Amino acid sequence: MIIMKKYTLKQLAEFLSAEFKGDPDCIITGIGSLESSVPGQISFLNDAKYKKHLDTTKATVVILKPEHCDLYNGNIIIYNDPYLAYAKISLLYDDRPAALSGIHPSAIIDQNCSIDNTVSIGPYCVIGKRVKIGRGSQVHTGCVIGDDVQIGENALLYPKVILYHKVKLGNNVAIHSGSVIGADGFGNANEKGVWRKIYQLGSVIIGNDVEIGANTTIDRGAIEDTIIEDGVKLDNQIQIGHNVHIGTHTAIAGCTGIAGSTKIGRHCMIGGGVGINGHIEIADGVIISGKSAVGKSLTKPGIYASSIPAMPYQTWGRVLVKLVQLVEKKKA
Amino acid sequence: MIIMKKYTLKQLAEFLSAEFKGDPDCIITGIGSLESSVPGQISFLNDAKYKKHLDTTKATVVILKPEHCDLYNGNIIIYNDPYLAYAKISLLYDDRPAALSGIHPSAIIDQNCSIDNTVSIGPYCVIGKRVKIGRGSQVHTGCVIGDDVQIGENALLYPKVILYHKVKLGNNVAIHSGSVIGADGFGNANEKGVWRKIYQLGSVIIGNDVEIGANTTIDRGAIEDTIIEDGVKLDNQIQIGHNVHIGTHTAIAGCTGIAGSTKIGRHCMIGGGVGINGHIEIADGVIISGKSAVGKSLTKPGIYASSIPAMPYQTWGRVLVKLVQLVEKKKA
Amino acid sequence: MIIMKKYTLKQLAEFLSAEFKGDPDCIITGIGSLESSVPGQISFLNDAKYKKHLDTTKATVVILKPEHCDLYNGNIIIYNDPYLAYAKISLLYDDRPAALSGIHPSAIIDQNCSIDNTVSIGPYCVIGKRVKIGRGSQVHTGCVIGDDVQIGENALLYPKVILYHKVKLGNNVAIHSGSVIGADGFGNANEKGVWRKIYQLGSVIIGNDVEIGANTTIDRGAIEDTIIEDGVKLDNQIQIGHNVHIGTHTAIAGCTGIAGSTKIGRHCMIGGGVGINGHIEIADGVIISGKSAVGKSLTKPGIYASSIPAMPYQTWGRVLVKLVQLVEKKKA
Repeated sequence: MIIMKKYTLKQLAEFLSAEFKGDPDCIITGIGSLESSVPGQISFLNDAKYKKHLDTTKATVVILKPEHCDLYNGNIIIYNDPYLAYAKISLLYDDRPAALSGIHPSAIIDQNCSIDNTVSIGPYCVIGKRVKIGRGSQVHTGCVIGDDVQIGENALLYPKVILYHKVKLGNNVAIHSGSVIGADGFGNANEKGVWRKIYQLGSVIIGNDVEIGANTTIDRGAIEDTIIEDGVKLDNQIQIGHNVHIGTHTAIAGCTGIAGSTKIGRHCMIGGGVGINGHIEIADGVIISGKSAVGKSLTKPGIYASSIPAMPYQTWGRVLVKLVQLVEKKKA
Repeated sequence: MIIMKKYTLKQLAEFLSAEFKGDPDCIITGIGSLESSVPGQISFLNDAKYKKHLDTTKATVVILKPEHCDLYNGNIIIYNDPYLAYAKISLLYDDRPAALSGIHPSAIIDQNCSIDNTVSIGPYCVIGKRVKIGRGSQVHTGCVIGDDVQIGENALLYPKVILYHKVKLGNNVAIHSGSVIGADGFGNANEKGVWRKIYQLGSVIIGNDVEIGANTTIDRGAIEDTIIEDGVKLDNQIQIGHNVHIGTHTAIAGCTGIAGSTKIGRHCMIGGGVGINGHIEIADGVIISGKSAVGKSLTKPGIYASSIPAMPYQTWGRVLVKLVQLVEKKKA
Repeated sequence: MIIMKKYTLKQLAEFLSAEFKGDPDCIITGIGSLESSVPGQISFLNDAKYKKHLDTTKATVVILKPEHCDLYNGNIIIYNDPYLAYAKISLLYDDRPAALSGIHPSAIIDQNCSIDNTVSIGPYCVIGKRVKIGRGSQVHTGCVIGDDVQIGENALLYPKVILYHKVKLGNNVAIHSGSVIGADGFGNANEKGVWRKIYQLGSVIIGNDVEIGANTTIDRGAIEDTIIEDGVKLDNQIQIGHNVHIGTHTAIAGCTGIAGSTKIGRHCMIGGGVGINGHIEIADGVIISGKSAVGKSLTKPGIYASSIPAMPYQTWGRVLVKLVQLVEKKKA
């Protein structure tokens, strides 16, 4: 990985509005972990249990909490939350390709769209009728934008994102490749054993500052809309059912599925591989451990879990036998 | 959401072959829930536990079971299964974009295809050799159809659906964006620690009236075909392994995975996030609760479950300790 | 399924370097299971429990272990591992469409790429800056290859594969449709309740002989790279978090998710629907049963499990009651 960007210690400290110790003019060209960093890189210590790595790190600068500054003699940036400082600095060293520029001639755009003249649209995109796209937004290769979609400012749609008709995105929304927003919710009514489709008349409304990973799906609402509020962060391969409502600044890890009409609160943290039942409510501030199943509403903030850590196969087999015996004894 | 479609109460009742009470000429322009509907909308009461909303609903018409008609003084459609009535009426208010028309000049279609002249094919589709597509089918933007694929009548392939070679679809099949039908099954034989690929010689056969959600994958068979029978409904992000056979009118919710060579019966209902082992059989009429794991054949109809509802983290920690103690005691 | 390829028994035995009994000139045009095969097909018996099918099989040739040869009077290929022999022969009967040829005029390729003149690139592909692609590689319809990507020899990218910038593939890598390699890892730091993005500066490095199924996602590293070593086989709908490291010849079944920075050993076999926590290590030779959750490092080879097989709903309900009682008793 070749990173060509260079900042001095003084520049980085100013960027963070932080104090520093050491050579203000030393050059930092990238970020490394304490263990792996090479000269020229900046690193950070967030958790005291890794402090031994301070003795051997080759990083040119280390970001430290005030209480850890005595542990290290080299160049230091002092910051209460070094992990957050790292997050902020990561922007400076981001090496993703430069923004697209302009509209590629192979993009097919309906005449009645309202697309800001700062928007860039990549090759082989297809943009439907009456689509609005706000200033600074980038729509990369092969995205398909349905009729009446509205996209705010500074959107970043990676290649092959699909937005079905009428989906609305706020400002600063990023969606990674392969994600599908606004496909039909899973609605069927049974008539004498045969499923009759319930046409999905709602849409998907996504707020500001939302990031969505790759191959995630968010279904359109059955009657009303599916809603993702401001600041929500969704990882890859997540499934959001129709009419789900996710509150502001909630983060959800990969492979989690949320069934229809469930309301997730604000500032929740939901682990990977979780399954959440439909038609329930999760309170603000709930944390759900990975691979848990949530069957009923969780009405109080706190940490919840139900996954069993894998154990040796034979031990687990004996546990399963005991589990069933618990019930059999009851019957006896 | 602007819905321009208008029907009178009398028209809707006739569409349902149902009786009604009230003003036959009142206009209904959309569907709402009892709680959220506004004047001009039709709503329904399926479950008596929500009957209190009849007192406050602003819906212009409500669909009610015969036994609930006394509870409401406004305009009524009388129907034994109001949820089914809603499903049927939802078609009338469906506002998805009008069908494509014709074949977009950017679509690349091999010369030896047999494509009905009523078929529409969107921009940037690529259609392989000897493909057959039946009347009324729509293939939206960017679909890729492999050699020797057969698609029946009235198919609806949303943008970016991929059908590998030799896949066959019946009539009235809908597949949402990002789904991949006919990729290789996961077959490998181990030779001294190294995996040797088993080439997947079968295909995928999908019956009539099947709907498949977004980003779902159905693998081609190893020797024989993977088979999805008529009327099956699959949600998003489902994984169907090679040589799976799913019986008619079975419905499967999102994020469920079915390993290879398993046979699922007819009229089953399988929840979301379920994992089903390979080489087993699930009887007709089985219902499997969300997030369950199915290791062995289920030979009788009924409801099955194995997921544990999430509980407070510390409580769950104590349960886990107890679980392991069950086994340790046995050994002692 | 029409298979036009024909081999004699003698040819197949020579291909396998195996001995045979019977008519050396009999013609085999395809592969079937013992139960389903028709005359002209070759079959195999791997597990003695299916030996009864030898009495009725219509296969023209059967591959048998030496110790089973006495059980069958027909044409035989003798091989210690019939399943492996089947895997090897499956290549001969593979009927997927012939390789693409050349570069389709609609492919958009940046001028500074280094693409071997034996490479084929399908319609509507978009290839970024400074991309290198080695001899014999095939890039099918609609793939998107980011800047600075390196692809080795004999790659097979099925339609709509997406490689973000700087991803590197070794030789003989196959990736099925819809998979996304190199999207951003899920990294966010919390600042007073608001998530701040951690830009993902690493990439994804994939070794030789790796096969990746459909709609699988492998995220780019946060600081260093995500690494998939030689010979790894990944099924569909798998999620690999940032900075995961997977050792050689490990196989992972569908719908499994691995959280960030976890290191998986060599020659592991991980079932479908498994969830593996972040920042842990799985030893070489570990086998994890489907639908298990792995919370902590597994330091020894062996088989691990934690999934509960679905049981009748009411039985399971009683088990859940008992589980919670275990803890309540403790408190009492």
